[in-house]
Amino acid sequence: MKRKITLKQIAKELDVSISTVSKALSGSKEISEDTTQKIQAFAKLYNYRPNNIALSLKNRKTKTIGIIIPEIVHHFFSTVIRGIELVANKRGYNVIVGLSNESFTKEIINMEMLAGGSIDGFILSISKETLLKQDYHHFNATINQGMPIVLFDRVVNEVDCDKVIVDDFKGALKAVKKLLSTGCKNIALITTMDYVSVGRLRTQGYLEALQDGKINADTNLILKIDDSLDVEGHLEVLEKEIEQFFKNNKKIDGVFAVNELYAVTAMKVARKLGFKIPDDIQVIGFTDGVLSKHATPSLTTVSQHGQKMGEKAADLLIDRLELEEVGSSEYIEENERDEFFKTVVIETELIERDSTK
Amino acid sequence: MKRKITLKQIAKELDVSISTVSKALSGSKEISEDTTQKIQAFAKLYNYRPNNIALSLKNRKTKTIGIIIPEIVHHFFSTVIRGIELVANKRGYNVIVGLSNESFTKEIINMEMLAGGSIDGFILSISKETLLKQDYHHFNATINQGMPIVLFDRVVNEVDCDKVIVDDFKGALKAVKKLLSTGCKNIALITTMDYVSVGRLRTQGYLEALQDGKINADTNLILKIDDSLDVEGHLEVLEKEIEQFFKNNKKIDGVFAVNELYAVTAMKVARKLGFKIPDDIQVIGFTDGVLSKHATPSLTTVSQHGQKMGEKAADLLIDRLELEEVGSSEYIEENERDEFFKTVVIETELIERDSTK
Repeated sequence: MKRKITLKQIAKELDVSISTVSKALSGSKEISEDTTQKIQAFAKLYNYRPNNIALSLKNRKTKTIGIIIPEIVHHFFSTVIRGIELVANKRGYNVIVGLSNESFTKEIINMEMLAGGSIDGFILSISKETLLKQDYHHFNATINQGMPIVLFDRVVNEVDCDKVIVDDFKGALKAVKKLLSTGCKNIALITTMDYVSVGRLRTQGYLEALQDGKINADTNLILKIDDSLDVEGHLEVLEKEIEQFFKNNKKIDGVFAVNELYAVTAMKVARKLGFKIPDDIQVIGFTDGVLSKHATPSLTTVSQHGQKMGEKAADLLIDRLELEEVGSSEYIEENERDEFFKTVVIETELIERDSTK
Repeated sequence: MKRKITLKQIAKELDVSISTVSKALSGSKEISEDTTQKIQAFAKLYNYRPNNIALSLKNRKTKTIGIIIPEIVHHFFSTVIRGIELVANKRGYNVIVGLSNESFTKEIINMEMLAGGSIDGFILSISKETLLKQDYHHFNATINQGMPIVLFDRVVNEVDCDKVIVDDFKGALKAVKKLLSTGCKNIALITTMDYVSVGRLRTQGYLEALQDGKINADTNLILKIDDSLDVEGHLEVLEKEIEQFFKNNKKIDGVFAVNELYAVTAMKVARKLGFKIPDDIQVIGFTDGVLSKHATPSLTTVSQHGQKMGEKAADLLIDRLELEEVGSSEYIEENERDEFFKTVVIETELIERDSTK
């Protein structure tokens, strides 16, 4: 039903001139209120999306931000949403959340649904499946249709928009340097599969720190976890895998894990195998969630400042929405617009607790 | 702009008969596609909501469920959403999440926004402020306009709809009986303020268990926490309050806490004060989240089965949506419809771990 319609078709259908349709859609005072409403209703029904960015933005002010996240049972994403909410509410916007569940198709469905009149712009983090497929057409199409997007955490070069990232590389570097400085000689890395960009960058930080410390990386000390193990029911499998890893590598005296769950599970397994933390094995995680604070011993971790990321993303999006409103009277060239895009890097912070010396 | 419009006004505006409008809105084949589309577009623009439930449901099949939860950084709500998602996806529906942030006004704003054409029905848990105000008009108005609601966890009698609850009373009863059976004589309760229904019911379960055990309740052993202490930054305040509570009541040998955070914090404080768990003090929480599993010692807790609640809520809502579709051809009396409403009670389960004997 929702086929694309052109200005010309709307004009023909309602028996008015193209210029009338165009003016009505841009809210011009030249057109009577009645006619404007009829044309706008018709255009809305047919999901008409003008190509001119400025024009489309005049019609649409829902004051709502659409957020799409890969996973809901995830403390980091929750804190980002809290940050977005905080700024959005302060600046008079509402938020609505769609879930991609790490699926490419669900990401598209959610974007289509929200973009169809419910929201002014998106803040989103890319699903794992999309990263695997490297298919980003839905983001670019949305942006080309005049709806701004801010990407956070999981971002790609192929999408031209505002971005908020944490310095995953430097965060990992700091963590591993801390382990080295406190005497660790055989530092293990527990990470994800390579296609998740944040896992890859954290792995690079780990390797760089070893190199700086004149230590040769030992691939046996790198454990790549299949992501499906993140799911709650698979905690036992995760534990077994890490236990086997420790048994195969008895010399491990330090662990850097790219997320909190892996780190806490590593501590649990290490304790079970009779190691003392931090005396025998030191452990550092990534993401400062509830687990890190309440673990025993409490976990030294790289904080991503999720709330700050959310706040920054919301500010970038709302700034752009409001900039475009002003811009609409002047008409900004598309290639000029591109130069506006910012990538904001949120500095990570090493929060030292009891799992390190 | 979005004032209410009647069938009569639409008919006058478009210069057609009322019966044409009514038929067009119900998708009757008697009316030409052109006319139907014009009328539907117009009605949509003016946010027309027919009073006849069956009629309105024919127009609207977004195959999307709107969820409104009080808080996003909350493992229980996350697992409920996961359950809703699971069933919704299986049955061909999408979900979208709005956040009330425990605010009455934000709850209304979110419902208005989502009800305006984005979704087919709601699954929601009532905000604390709404419970305090006891103002439920927005739920009833939505239901009266023909949009079904399923309430979960925090429900009230004043709203007539399908509900999914956990047996808070029995869950608490089981927990406190467990403490009594393992020798506790002075069982403390750490709970919320009374207006949160789940806290109230869990308190009643606690009192009932004591009575069954022929123990007089001691109000000094009941600590009511101000909810604003749940916020992350206030963890220290929560700790101090519980510490003072323990210091004032040295005889405490068992603790039942109405949520996981209070329970884990109580364990932390108890350990700090030199008590051994479970030897000196046994602790049981409510809600089986990540903290319970990973705490040291791991926490015995009452599982609410959040995912199961979500699954059940989604089934109830989709059943009703699909029932109403069938019903629309026959016309079901409104008072007949009321008798369909179900309250499903999800049984709690005591998960025994290392914080009890």
